[in-house]
Amino acid sequence: MVNQQLLNPQSIVVIGGSNDLSKPGGKILHHILKSFKGKIYVTNPKTAHVQGIETFSAVEDLPDNIDLAVIAVAAKYCPCAVKTLALNKGTKAFIIISAGFSEESEQGALYEREIVEVINQVDGCLIGPNCIGMMNQNHHSVFTTPIPVFSNKGVDFISGSGATAVFIMEIGRPLGLRFNSVYSVGNSAQIGVEDVLEYLDLSYNPKTSSKIKLLYIESVNDGKKLLKHARSLINKGCKIAGIKAGFSEDGSRAASSHTGAMANSDMAVDALFKKAGIVRCYGRMELAVVGAIYMTKEFEGRNIAIITHAGGPAVMLTDTLSKAGFKVPKLDGEATEKLKEKLYDGSSVANPIDFLATGNAEQLAAIIDACENDFDQIDAIVVIFGSSGLFPVKEVYEVLHQKSLSCQKPIFAILPSIINVKDDIETFISKGHVNFPDEVIFGEALAKVYFSNDNNTEEIRDGSVVDLEDLIEKFEDGYLPPEKVSALISKVDIPFVAELVLRSTQELDMRINHVEFPVVLKVIGPVHKSDVGGVFLNVKDAEELYDKYDKLMQIEGAEGVLIQQMVSGIELFLGAKYDEGFGHTILCGLGGVFVEVLKDVSYSMAPVSKDEALNMIKSLKGIKILHGLRGQEGVNIDLFAEIIVQFSNLVYQHPEIKEIDLNPLMGNLKRIVAVDARIRIEKGE
Amino acid sequence: MVNQQLLNPQSIVVIGGSNDLSKPGGKILHHILKSFKGKIYVTNPKTAHVQGIETFSAVEDLPDNIDLAVIAVAAKYCPCAVKTLALNKGTKAFIIISAGFSEESEQGALYEREIVEVINQVDGCLIGPNCIGMMNQNHHSVFTTPIPVFSNKGVDFISGSGATAVFIMEIGRPLGLRFNSVYSVGNSAQIGVEDVLEYLDLSYNPKTSSKIKLLYIESVNDGKKLLKHARSLINKGCKIAGIKAGFSEDGSRAASSHTGAMANSDMAVDALFKKAGIVRCYGRMELAVVGAIYMTKEFEGRNIAIITHAGGPAVMLTDTLSKAGFKVPKLDGEATEKLKEKLYDGSSVANPIDFLATGNAEQLAAIIDACENDFDQIDAIVVIFGSSGLFPVKEVYEVLHQKSLSCQKPIFAILPSIINVKDDIETFISKGHVNFPDEVIFGEALAKVYFSNDNNTEEIRDGSVVDLEDLIEKFEDGYLPPEKVSALISKVDIPFVAELVLRSTQELDMRINHVEFPVVLKVIGPVHKSDVGGVFLNVKDAEELYDKYDKLMQIEGAEGVLIQQMVSGIELFLGAKYDEGFGHTILCGLGGVFVEVLKDVSYSMAPVSKDEALNMIKSLKGIKILHGLRGQEGVNIDLFAEIIVQFSNLVYQHPEIKEIDLNPLMGNLKRIVAVDARIRIEKGE
Repeated sequence: MVNQQLLNPQSIVVIGGSNDLSKPGGKILHHILKSFKGKIYVTNPKTAHVQGIETFSAVEDLPDNIDLAVIAVAAKYCPCAVKTLALNKGTKAFIIISAGFSEESEQGALYEREIVEVINQVDGCLIGPNCIGMMNQNHHSVFTTPIPVFSNKGVDFISGSGATAVFIMEIGRPLGLRFNSVYSVGNSAQIGVEDVLEYLDLSYNPKTSSKIKLLYIESVNDGKKLLKHARSLINKGCKIAGIKAGFSEDGSRAASSHTGAMANSDMAVDALFKKAGIVRCYGRMELAVVGAIYMTKEFEGRNIAIITHAGGPAVMLTDTLSKAGFKVPKLDGEATEKLKEKLYDGSSVANPIDFLATGNAEQLAAIIDACENDFDQIDAIVVIFGSSGLFPVKEVYEVLHQKSLSCQKPIFAILPSIINVKDDIETFISKGHVNFPDEVIFGEALAKVYFSNDNNTEEIRDGSVVDLEDLIEKFEDGYLPPEKVSALISKVDIPFVAELVLRSTQELDMRINHVEFPVVLKVIGPVHKSDVGGVFLNVKDAEELYDKYDKLMQIEGAEGVLIQQMVSGIELFLGAKYDEGFGHTILCGLGGVFVEVLKDVSYSMAPVSKDEALNMIKSLKGIKILHGLRGQEGVNIDLFAEIIVQFSNLVYQHPEIKEIDLNPLMGNLKRIVAVDARIRIEKGE
Repeated sequence: MVNQQLLNPQSIVVIGGSNDLSKPGGKILHHILKSFKGKIYVTNPKTAHVQGIETFSAVEDLPDNIDLAVIAVAAKYCPCAVKTLALNKGTKAFIIISAGFSEESEQGALYEREIVEVINQVDGCLIGPNCIGMMNQNHHSVFTTPIPVFSNKGVDFISGSGATAVFIMEIGRPLGLRFNSVYSVGNSAQIGVEDVLEYLDLSYNPKTSSKIKLLYIESVNDGKKLLKHARSLINKGCKIAGIKAGFSEDGSRAASSHTGAMANSDMAVDALFKKAGIVRCYGRMELAVVGAIYMTKEFEGRNIAIITHAGGPAVMLTDTLSKAGFKVPKLDGEATEKLKEKLYDGSSVANPIDFLATGNAEQLAAIIDACENDFDQIDAIVVIFGSSGLFPVKEVYEVLHQKSLSCQKPIFAILPSIINVKDDIETFISKGHVNFPDEVIFGEALAKVYFSNDNNTEEIRDGSVVDLEDLIEKFEDGYLPPEKVSALISKVDIPFVAELVLRSTQELDMRINHVEFPVVLKVIGPVHKSDVGGVFLNVKDAEELYDKYDKLMQIEGAEGVLIQQMVSGIELFLGAKYDEGFGHTILCGLGGVFVEVLKDVSYSMAPVSKDEALNMIKSLKGIKILHGLRGQEGVNIDLFAEIIVQFSNLVYQHPEIKEIDLNPLMGNLKRIVAVDARIRIEKGE
């Protein structure tokens, strides 16, 4: 667990500090010397002084109780150094930047395990190995550049990749992205992205903590932890955006159920992030832009005023925002007339408010004031102002600076002239603002921030226990047989259609008087029943039943025949798939061609609450059919949501259910009945 | 029409040249002086010398036959100057940068018309007014900065907005985007974006012309011209990408047909660009990145090798490329083993090829050579190489430079360290290369370039004339009545279901013996028949027919009853909508819920060829249903395509058909019959 010695040490030792600034051990010491106010120690067996600091030649010679050890020596020397520091010297925090551990070899993995064991023994914490280090406002223990600008209002940034962290800081700087802390977790030997997030949650202080978290994740090891602490931070008022890299690798894995075929790890990431409230990003620029949006005031509502001296970018931004669901509402009435008097002839105040290429600072101030005070319907303001290279923009940007401070409504600055007025943009940013050089990238990110999550603040509850012992205890991995399938489904009160399994003509003779026609017959044995002609619908009487029974039993692999009551209604689909690290993704939709051909499904991560289930149903493209189209009977949507909740709880309680389809369920306004189901069990060790 | 005097003048006069570089007339002269090798004249009534050039105090005093006049005086002085130059002095090319014309006032519009008339009279050409000017390798007649780097291999850039042109040049410069020419058409008084494109097509010379065109369009005035010349240029080997700004404005317009409601101007832009082969972009960064991709070698195939020294960006790029349809194929075999020997331990050669943070120039050369020579399946190479600020990258970027020149396969450079190794990136770019700082933006743009168009090289043919005179000549604007609808559809050999219109019980008595049951009855009069209970399906005999006839005639607004033969099959949908400037967008899909609820339609711009029609059908999400799902009869897709072609020709010949739905058509493997149709006519002046 992250500790105070790591975050706010009183003393730091660099193990392997160097005079050579082109070496990690030299550069990291250099950065610590420039940033850290406490006591600094260095070990180096070869020289007496390093960067002006007297060195210790061995770890053993160091004084006791140094808070933080930053280790830059070769992997093979690390276990010994850590042991001495942790067990004999009382050090509780470690950053190991060296590579050559589990990412490289078996031997390295052994070193890594040894180190973690020792650090755990003293209840210490470890960042790395194989990372660039970490930095916050107390110390910059990283060997890379650039060192970003730090601020309490900047972002807490946790990265699973050191190089990517560097590149994100580089792409963020021209935007004015500032940081409160940067963690590069490297191999995550002890502390991973989820663990840092947990700490930020548990130590959250509304007065001093940053409200913005950016994540770059390469592997999700503990989805539940990520979910819990992300949601908790968001409920405390934080904003989180993240990239999960590496979601496309599993396309080739064979899946046999519908759900298995449709639900990929990309969907699992999506479901997890959505449930956690994390805005999902895909690239560095996007993540940085979202971070910069978070650094600007929040707003409610959907109405944006666009102020510009150049038509084109305003039109492109209007297109982007409108397409995404924002409004750029036409402005009219007395206030616009008054405003117009202050602008040059030919200006437009309709929104976008275009005050022409010759527009000046005074006019911009008047327009912003009108948006702030007179145009009540406006929720947020975007100012697009570049330069053709003719006029100075200093005064205009000064107005933008002042108004950004004084206005209640957020002002987003699009300053596109990154060459013509480069210096003026840098000055504007240096005053604590952010810039979005491309209005379309900004607009898309703004939509993502405001529309991608439902701001679900419900607590995540573990549902009631569902005991399946009797059903699957003795069962070997694979698909459950039909009898067990219906029994399992019934455990969570999802009605299963009345059915009968027959394995011989004699059995049929015995049961024929209990059959309520019409019925459906399905062959037992073959997996893809329809494809082998193994299904007969609407079997009306005993004669037809005997005839079809014989036909089905002649199919290759036939072990019996399932007789089901024929139920009518709208076909529905419900499925789940388990992904290691993530848990179950729940999918729902209409059945038949809607799921098979059109892939019209919505999904969420288990456990699904009633509200989430209702949202899943409502986000289906075919939702109108469930409402009852053109006089046809619809489906009881509330009941469907209840079933999704039950179903989600069933799988949430049982990770051994790897894939499950209820397909179809038949629904109308009164009831929803499962007609067929497939369940694949895999218990693991 | 653009002429040689504009593009390659021997002499230029600046009307209103100034000493003040903060004025357009000063800056444009300054740029001309720096770039233009020919004779330069200046008029200025106030000073004898401007920027070292002796001035003429009046236009009348200028010598004859100056090729190009660049005009920077107030709008009111322009008509007179143009008249003198065009009519008395033999000048044939004009650039008017001044504002204050049709964009501002009625008076300005008068000036503009006057100027165009005079210039047309002498068969001259006019760029502007209200623009930043134009520039190419012969002269930089613009008043804005930055002046981009020029090259034959750079892009021809035509912009409907001057400021946007500036901002695109600014965003493009850090990427290394170079230009062959830049046209800012301003108010397009005489020459619009389409006209410049026409000229670039007609004057295209495969040896000397640039192959890349970028467009920024604010309004499409002549879609047919754009289509014709874009397609022609692409067939000559050119690449075109463009932004059409302002597609979201018409959401509020009421539309009464299905097609009218679904087809918006965004769809029309899409259809036009797709048909023309123009890659559609939405933002400045995207357009610049696509332009930079065009500046790199082309490739065929889908297999990309990603070479990196930093895992994260390579994983994100793999995700992006895989999701878009590219492959990052696993590399194995002897060649990879040989390559691995040249790299440090822990490197991966599986693709992405990761040669670690410590990877060097020599290793990069070896990897690129292996991709070029040994890995036959690889079609294109991406190199991602940044810097943590520790190691110099000069040698690595030199290898990248050399290999980019020598390799047959394209090499795309992702150099993310725009801060740490800013200078090295600039050096790399200065050698004629481009850089993509964000791998995900690059990957998405690459997919757009390679997947968004079908490379349709067919000639666009006007189909055969369809004479509708007798049907619509005397008809007033609005929806055609049922009798005319079926007659109109039959004109292009689309079968219409057998039907009978009855307006009285007497008529019914007379015709009852000719009715072939079962039939469908539909009320005539109300527009939304289903909603008022105005449709009865499967009417089986005469008794039922009389009964239902009476019921329908009691509906408010009922004028009669339509009796149609009941036809079975799969419901299809076909529609078209006319947009001024664009022409007709043709939409097709499955009928019923597929069009009404799921909006599963595909679209194309008329005239639609057979191949395009087949592509439209194939791109439907519900295509499998047309192929015949699970033993059900499908639809004759070839026949459907033929009908789309006929239908498209019908509307192409008749712009007065503003909206038309054939909904549904009923199709099976043998026939497709239109069952209902709505046609709105608007003839205009």
